[in-house]
Amino acid sequence: MLYLDHAATSPVRPEVLEAMRPYLTDVFGNPSSHHTAGEAASHALEDARARVAAALGMRAGDVIFTSGGTEANNLAVKGIVLGAQQTSPSRRHLITTPIEHESVLESASYLQRLHGVEVTKLPVDAQGVINPETVAAALRDDTALVSFAHANNEIGTVQDVAALAAVARERRVPVHVDAVQSAGWLDLRPLGRDARVDAISIAGHKLGAPKGTGALAVRSRVPLEPLLHGGGQERGRRSGTENVAGAVALATAIALAETERERTVEQVAEATSRFIAGVLASVPQARLTGHPTRRLPATAGFTFAGTSGEAVLLELERRGVITSSGSACAAGSDEPSHVLVACGVEDAVAQTAVRFTFDRAPLPADAPERLAGLLAEAVAAVAESTLREPGDHRISP
Amino acid sequence: MLYLDHAATSPVRPEVLEAMRPYLTDVFGNPSSHHTAGEAASHALEDARARVAAALGMRAGDVIFTSGGTEANNLAVKGIVLGAQQTSPSRRHLITTPIEHESVLESASYLQRLHGVEVTKLPVDAQGVINPETVAAALRDDTALVSFAHANNEIGTVQDVAALAAVARERRVPVHVDAVQSAGWLDLRPLGRDARVDAISIAGHKLGAPKGTGALAVRSRVPLEPLLHGGGQERGRRSGTENVAGAVALATAIALAETERERTVEQVAEATSRFIAGVLASVPQARLTGHPTRRLPATAGFTFAGTSGEAVLLELERRGVITSSGSACAAGSDEPSHVLVACGVEDAVAQTAVRFTFDRAPLPADAPERLAGLLAEAVAAVAESTLREPGDHRISP
Repeated sequence: MLYLDHAATSPVRPEVLEAMRPYLTDVFGNPSSHHTAGEAASHALEDARARVAAALGMRAGDVIFTSGGTEANNLAVKGIVLGAQQTSPSRRHLITTPIEHESVLESASYLQRLHGVEVTKLPVDAQGVINPETVAAALRDDTALVSFAHANNEIGTVQDVAALAAVARERRVPVHVDAVQSAGWLDLRPLGRDARVDAISIAGHKLGAPKGTGALAVRSRVPLEPLLHGGGQERGRRSGTENVAGAVALATAIALAETERERTVEQVAEATSRFIAGVLASVPQARLTGHPTRRLPATAGFTFAGTSGEAVLLELERRGVITSSGSACAAGSDEPSHVLVACGVEDAVAQTAVRFTFDRAPLPADAPERLAGLLAEAVAAVAESTLREPGDHRISP
Repeated sequence: MLYLDHAATSPVRPEVLEAMRPYLTDVFGNPSSHHTAGEAASHALEDARARVAAALGMRAGDVIFTSGGTEANNLAVKGIVLGAQQTSPSRRHLITTPIEHESVLESASYLQRLHGVEVTKLPVDAQGVINPETVAAALRDDTALVSFAHANNEIGTVQDVAALAAVARERRVPVHVDAVQSAGWLDLRPLGRDARVDAISIAGHKLGAPKGTGALAVRSRVPLEPLLHGGGQERGRRSGTENVAGAVALATAIALAETERERTVEQVAEATSRFIAGVLASVPQARLTGHPTRRLPATAGFTFAGTSGEAVLLELERRGVITSSGSACAAGSDEPSHVLVACGVEDAVAQTAVRFTFDRAPLPADAPERLAGLLAEAVAAVAESTLREPGDHRISP
């Protein structure tokens, strides 16, 4: 089986497993303990923190280790808005977009339901691009936060973070960037260093670190109401015994990806482009989702109007290719993708979406063309069966 | 070095590391993905869920995997109170005690600060025991939750959960039991099965599973506002890609501890009792904290009035014994232990506390007496130095 669902999750890399192992066994102390066992763990944690900060262009003291991207996004959105409300109670406005990950959208909805926060969802264009002018127009005196993703998890469109952040900074409104999908693929250092955003989320398991790891880097000057209260770990911003091995794994994975980014990303991007071109040339129903050029190097999403996305996935799996319709976080839902709908794709067409997300390790040279061929076969098989049995899009195995 | 701070954290057990390894490498799918890679992960997760539920006397569907004990306690306290408020907005009262872990107390304080929840902290007696009559007296028509620990993390006192829960159940008020410290040491099945409590928290890293793992089992009939919003994993009660390896580790660790509990706990309890008797006999300043008999089998806390707890710890470390003053979660603080203060211990005496927490694997037969001897030496050294330099309790190495 060829696994092409790396945006859903990736295996732990052997180097990462090796780096974290001592912190699961010998160096097992609680970093908050004041004895030598605790101190050894604490040193490893602080080293990991510095390495994660470096990859994000932030300061070590900004990095809060979390249990993953969802927690990082929850902490950013709820923590910054509730933190702002405590210093200036009038701040009750949040700006985001309709194409964000569920963890951002549902955090916004929580703030709306329980704290009376008003949420503005900026429109995006058909390629999923946010226009800085819409941010400027939406900003209000009571805006507490602008939150958007660096790159979209379903369609791969990459935003112009510098331009978007500049608009918010002019009004002194903090900016949170969800970099869960872009981490390892794009250079994140400019987000912190140049665009000077206030908060950046990443998740370990999309980078070759284990599930259950992640981080939010948030500038210390930004008031933050914690999500997890307790012993006051992570400078009082995230309580709970620190997952030292997880932090070491995350730092190792992001550093590895950084090194490789310079080496292999171009190669992967070129292969993805060839795959996209092959699909568009050989599958008449295929439409690329997202922006044609401002996109993640390893993400290629399509719709196949008139077919069924689920059926295409099953046909692909029969041909040895594992991929998905979009976000795994929404895989339980029968609803059309909220991202595609926000990009103006009709519900019925959105339900035909299929997303390929490639590995960091480049595939064999002829893979893009072979894969495009398999996809063409799969779509043709589904289209044929749909013609035969229009009421039943399921393919029997 | 002899590590006697197992209540702070424990190393990952080799069997646990072995059991989780496949889910870090080969079986790496996202359990929410609908393809074969996702399904294999999902099966492992559901198997782990059933095993954790069995250890708690709860149903598999009740178990929510979390990033640790702090998240489990935050989810229980905030989730149940905010969940109750949404079904009956008048419910704005929470009952807990002053000896709870910081994650419970700070969650209560969050609810007070941001949601106007009224918090009653029940008195405890000098041994840290909660009297069911105080619960009965504190219950109100608007009480949303009663939350207390099965066993205290600093003094080891074990509560009569059945009696306490019965009082709350009569008034149809949900009960949350923090079993982070008792898990593996006491049989937790009666909590769910007989005392029929509504929610139970556990943490992996005190059981030989990695840091960053834990669970809250909460009955499905109890309305629960999630702490982490997003993709709706864990039946919508805890979003975020599931930490499959972590769940497998937690299930393996709790099952192992269950098996061993029957085999070694008595032996460990007997050794702890001999250690306590030895200390009380040979150290004139020593007072045992907590209840003399209703206590965790491997916890022995003392105060040494007139000395300094920190100085005793340093003297012990010089003699090859690593332990702590109490909760690692409060190790950064100079405040006296809130637990001891609530038990009526004077601030100055509370600051002399030292807690020993033993491993599951029994120590050599003469260890209790040898350790008591080392502790007597350490306390004597500190007392002597305090007499010489009353202003400076720090021992130079």
